[in-house]
Amino acid sequence: MQVDIGAAGITCQKLGEAETMVDGGIEDVLIPYNIVGEPKLERLAALLGRARITVSVDDAALLPGLSGAARRAGVELGVLVECDTGLGRAGVDTPMRAIELARAVAGTDGLRFEGFLTYPAPDGAVGFLSAAAEGAAAHGLDAKVVSAGGTPNMWAAGELVPVVNEYRAGTYAFHDRKTVAAGAGRLEDVALTVRATVVSRPARDRAILDTGSKSLASDPNPAGGPGTIVEAPGSSIVRVDEEHGYVSVGEGDGDTLELGRQVTVVPNHACVVANLFDELWLERDGRITGRWRVTARGRSR
Amino acid sequence: MQVDIGAAGITCQKLGEAETMVDGGIEDVLIPYNIVGEPKLERLAALLGRARITVSVDDAALLPGLSGAARRAGVELGVLVECDTGLGRAGVDTPMRAIELARAVAGTDGLRFEGFLTYPAPDGAVGFLSAAAEGAAAHGLDAKVVSAGGTPNMWAAGELVPVVNEYRAGTYAFHDRKTVAAGAGRLEDVALTVRATVVSRPARDRAILDTGSKSLASDPNPAGGPGTIVEAPGSSIVRVDEEHGYVSVGEGDGDTLELGRQVTVVPNHACVVANLFDELWLERDGRITGRWRVTARGRSR
Repeated sequence: MQVDIGAAGITCQKLGEAETMVDGGIEDVLIPYNIVGEPKLERLAALLGRARITVSVDDAALLPGLSGAARRAGVELGVLVECDTGLGRAGVDTPMRAIELARAVAGTDGLRFEGFLTYPAPDGAVGFLSAAAEGAAAHGLDAKVVSAGGTPNMWAAGELVPVVNEYRAGTYAFHDRKTVAAGAGRLEDVALTVRATVVSRPARDRAILDTGSKSLASDPNPAGGPGTIVEAPGSSIVRVDEEHGYVSVGEGDGDTLELGRQVTVVPNHACVVANLFDELWLERDGRITGRWRVTARGRSR
Repeated sequence: MQVDIGAAGITCQKLGEAETMVDGGIEDVLIPYNIVGEPKLERLAALLGRARITVSVDDAALLPGLSGAARRAGVELGVLVECDTGLGRAGVDTPMRAIELARAVAGTDGLRFEGFLTYPAPDGAVGFLSAAAEGAAAHGLDAKVVSAGGTPNMWAAGELVPVVNEYRAGTYAFHDRKTVAAGAGRLEDVALTVRATVVSRPARDRAILDTGSKSLASDPNPAGGPGTIVEAPGSSIVRVDEEHGYVSVGEGDGDTLELGRQVTVVPNHACVVANLFDELWLERDGRITGRWRVTARGRSR
């Protein structure tokens, strides 16, 4: 659906997810994640024969393996250099190192230097990426793609132009309590919610939902708690066990949270919640209109 | 395997998990969780014809539904009264209310009062349960089962005897960083670990593992971080994104955490980690000896 309305393709962190996306008919997949080890390189080689795959690297030690995979597949593999522009995760940490690695990619048999990639796009990212692209150009290398991403700041992506020419956002498709907290969406924009039943009402001020950490996950949120109950804005989920959500019941929410009632919970983090369920149920105007199988769930390898 | 070495049966929180256990041949299943709503009561009725099922309740409003399920199945359903002896989750909160509910259970067609249940077994649990059992006896009701549980305090379960005559422990089968922190096991007792690969080594003092919150979950631990790296005791996983584990590399662990190396991570909470994976791989003496399908994974309904 995203490709149909204009996305160039899809970004996956894991090879297993990329395999699922190619199985599902996506023809252009970016894996901004170092691919390490022979079993994964073999799977990459198999995938290269089936779709346009682009990968990223942050270390020259990865290049021989990627080169071998490309050679086995008989294709040229596009490679982006991952840059750490402030997150402190993976990525080379200076424009000079990025340029060095770009040159190493371009000099490796079977690999094609495609450009630079970062995540998300903190202050300083444009300066870093711009310096890297200019430095690469000085060595005759064209950074065709300069890619940043992240839902929380997606509305400001325009400020990254013209240096950045690709923006990767994922959570926007669903939104969640964290992207709402970041101002990227409103609570009513959130499309992925967890349907909860009040399974116990042991006290006037306490209700127990059947959604615990196996449904809502335990990702923290600055606002506290694992989720927001849409129908009970004066109440809060204060903590979760695996199968129990503890609700502090607000004054006006007593009836809404009676034993047996169902409510809608907006989780903190849509990504990990979708990964807990085998199916998503689709609802429009209060009616269930279908189900989606979460085929990339658990494809963590 | 647990039943083979003496367990009376198994405890599940969710009906879907109980269905899976019965499918797997377990003949005695306790569901200490209010079963709410007609769709679940229908599934319960179907299950009652297949195995010995015991449920718990903490509210008399649940009894008509359970009675209907038992009648449909043509069996008598054993019911425990859930007691909140300090956790503040579900359960009736005084012995007097427990006795009242026990009498209501005993007076409901198709239901058999079986006894009392709590979780875990905090200070005061024995007094509560003892008073409930004595009060029930005064009304001619025999609390055949008085059940407590929890891995962290399982070594002290003897102190609950003779009031408590059933103890439910689950995490002990695997152990995890939390049960080790509670003193219930040692790090070397932990049987469920996550195999991680160093996928990036962007700085001397920072490594990135391919195990993020989709593999280790985000359950907190008082000791901090989402897991312990067995082979790198001087290093710590400081945080996780969905697919990235950020490691602060200790002085002596530089080689152990080189790009491409594999390490063993003990997660904070085995229950939710097992729920993230479709398969567990079995290892003995460094060799893979088999795989288990996690058939109860995601059975959150």
